[in-house]
Amino acid sequence: MKFKQLSVLALALLLPFATMAEDMLAPSQTPSRPKNMIIMIGDGMGPSYTTAYRYFKDNPDTEEVEQTVFDRLLVGMASTYPARVSGYVTDSAAAATALATGSKSYNGAISVDLQKQPLETIMEKAKKRGLSTGVAVTCQVNHATPAAFLTHNESRKNYDEIASSYINTDADVILGGGQKYFTPAMLDAFKTKGYQVLNDFNQLATVTQPKVLGLFADVQLPWVVDEPDAHRLTAMTNKALELMSQNTQGFVLMIEGSQIDWAGHDNDIVAAMGEMDEFAHAVEAVEQFVRNHPDTLMVVTADHNTGGLSIGRDGKYAWDPEVIQAVKASPETLAATAIANDNWQQPLADGLGFALTDDLQARFDHARMQGKDVLAQALKHEIDLRSNTGWTTGGHTGVDVQVFASGPGAELFIGNQDNTDIANKLASLLPKPKKSTAATVPAATPGNG
Amino acid sequence: MKFKQLSVLALALLLPFATMAEDMLAPSQTPSRPKNMIIMIGDGMGPSYTTAYRYFKDNPDTEEVEQTVFDRLLVGMASTYPARVSGYVTDSAAAATALATGSKSYNGAISVDLQKQPLETIMEKAKKRGLSTGVAVTCQVNHATPAAFLTHNESRKNYDEIASSYINTDADVILGGGQKYFTPAMLDAFKTKGYQVLNDFNQLATVTQPKVLGLFADVQLPWVVDEPDAHRLTAMTNKALELMSQNTQGFVLMIEGSQIDWAGHDNDIVAAMGEMDEFAHAVEAVEQFVRNHPDTLMVVTADHNTGGLSIGRDGKYAWDPEVIQAVKASPETLAATAIANDNWQQPLADGLGFALTDDLQARFDHARMQGKDVLAQALKHEIDLRSNTGWTTGGHTGVDVQVFASGPGAELFIGNQDNTDIANKLASLLPKPKKSTAATVPAATPGNG
Repeated sequence: MKFKQLSVLALALLLPFATMAEDMLAPSQTPSRPKNMIIMIGDGMGPSYTTAYRYFKDNPDTEEVEQTVFDRLLVGMASTYPARVSGYVTDSAAAATALATGSKSYNGAISVDLQKQPLETIMEKAKKRGLSTGVAVTCQVNHATPAAFLTHNESRKNYDEIASSYINTDADVILGGGQKYFTPAMLDAFKTKGYQVLNDFNQLATVTQPKVLGLFADVQLPWVVDEPDAHRLTAMTNKALELMSQNTQGFVLMIEGSQIDWAGHDNDIVAAMGEMDEFAHAVEAVEQFVRNHPDTLMVVTADHNTGGLSIGRDGKYAWDPEVIQAVKASPETLAATAIANDNWQQPLADGLGFALTDDLQARFDHARMQGKDVLAQALKHEIDLRSNTGWTTGGHTGVDVQVFASGPGAELFIGNQDNTDIANKLASLLPKPKKSTAATVPAATPGNG
Repeated sequence: MKFKQLSVLALALLLPFATMAEDMLAPSQTPSRPKNMIIMIGDGMGPSYTTAYRYFKDNPDTEEVEQTVFDRLLVGMASTYPARVSGYVTDSAAAATALATGSKSYNGAISVDLQKQPLETIMEKAKKRGLSTGVAVTCQVNHATPAAFLTHNESRKNYDEIASSYINTDADVILGGGQKYFTPAMLDAFKTKGYQVLNDFNQLATVTQPKVLGLFADVQLPWVVDEPDAHRLTAMTNKALELMSQNTQGFVLMIEGSQIDWAGHDNDIVAAMGEMDEFAHAVEAVEQFVRNHPDTLMVVTADHNTGGLSIGRDGKYAWDPEVIQAVKASPETLAATAIANDNWQQPLADGLGFALTDDLQARFDHARMQGKDVLAQALKHEIDLRSNTGWTTGGHTGVDVQVFASGPGAELFIGNQDNTDIANKLASLLPKPKKSTAATVPAATPGNG
């Protein structure tokens, strides 16, 4: 059953195995090349995150541990190292550059090479071929990952320049946060170009055709654990699919669960599992779209691992997700609420899902007097100890990440590959360029992939 | 090139891709079922170990990062959780039980179920079918992993009982350490049964036919970094393959890089990379055997992850394997040498591969006065800081492990699976049982896989 997404493979290879008979009787009707491609990136989502998420979602009342969408779709792994000048541990910019262009660059690079010259992105290639393009993310839309798919800049830190350049991307769908980076004049320019410009998430449902620029937060969207029923990434994903499907030529869409990484940087297992849950929801929505549209390829991966998360710590052979499930908001929000409230003890205990001993109450009180960040840190530390969750860094680590795929071409991603290989395989699946539109996008810079 | 091991897959699926033409023109001649199976276990070898090993072996003078044997052979991943009673983080015994029998059990179990009843192992199934069986490991041969393949016991800690039971396994090759667990009377019993009993590694080359019991150390074999040219696991692997190939019915061989785990427990990146290097050598030897014997399946995996190793720590985006490469012996050996030597400073600096500042010399001197273990700890800590290597535990963690395979049936291991699935897939590839020998091995206990 685990090979369902590889039913052609099953047909070809498993003929001697009678248990695969149902697959043999139902050969896939999928074409060999996809019309549409959906690239999903769990920012910072190393192997410990998908494994932890399985146990976080596990129903302890059943003997079996239930599979997740990641388990269903796993096909391979990818190395993530940047260009040699930046060592073996990538940042999100170099990783997104690799995934968007097929070329390694330095940490901080937004789809430019070592000489800071633009590298052609898959979005630009798609536009040349008449396809629609779009991004949907939970961070600001001009953050490193979406930026590397949409534009070029010598530094991810040039947020204003990156935002300003988006008017020239011709992207059909741009959804996420980042209102503070777009001036009224910039938004007017988008409107003049025919974009619907949204700043209220409720408006999204009313949009019926591209183009659309939706900026739903000043910077990033709220933590998923602080609004568990909002399902914003899934809603943005479904809307992007609906709008971009209108192009009969096809589309390339990049979707990012951006704040998995932010939770990892914060060493916040509660926020991390919340972001994982919403990203998994979005992946399931795309999985369903691929089932209904056999001309669509989905590839899910991570840009790198964040935080050195480990399922177990300090010599104990245990990890207790029930501790994490019991927490009712992000530690950041719990801390802010406790700071604002003189009678903070019982509400904090309720929010954490465990009683505060006198000792714990004294420690939290001491932390509270030092402010929200120190209190949030104390809460996370206590949750880590109780759940037996480990971390090694507030930054990234170099472990390979997983690759998940379904749809025509998915078999190309089986086994080990480099992150640049992912981009090059996707590019190889695009149709031939249309000559008439080739002059409207920047010239390609040769990649090293 | 990365899909070479999956050339049938390439043929079936990649017809539209002209670059795969060479594979199309050379369809595989491999049979659909293997005659021989080789199961290789990197004990404790989570995804961070294989990734770190790639960068440890990388030639910094080339632009490209060179692939390892693990990169060539990756096909999937596996979950490692034990039976529910033991939570989500497995020990080596429950994991080896899963890999040997296809059933989950409690931490500590040696191929027995939750009721402490024997679970039939793949080695017992192989014997029923007339195949040869064997193990080659770098720990004592009665340690958890080989024990779960060869015998049954309610606790991995019953080392003497486990060793005593080996006389009844009928295994054709048993190679590793553990002299202290085998009394002269026990060794005589092996001889009476027709085994050649070895205790000197040099004798191994002279053996020309099974059966053989080789115990080459009192407990475990030496750290690889302390004898870098010995290649003991590779030598045992090659000898086991030579001896077991003599059975025209086929064989099932389990090979373990046992001390990757021990280095992980010690949070010793120098020893860990040494053990990884020798395990990789052994995997390459088996890869070569599979190339020469297209009737052989190899499956490589880990039983779990150890130590929470991370490639990067403390917020720095860096990992420096040159620091690790420069260390000339295990920190344990360097510490022992420094303790035994009054003029320890310069030899220690030479062994570590970096100069000792006054501050460092003072710290090591302080540690040295507290004994070998404290000094070794101080050395490891300094190496970790300089290489930017992180750890979260002296125990295991729950992250999924990788699965690598080549040969007939390798495609069964593509994608996500449970560790019990690995055993069940291997068992499904065995030939039908021979009725005449069925009574000579313990009755099978139904598994939960």
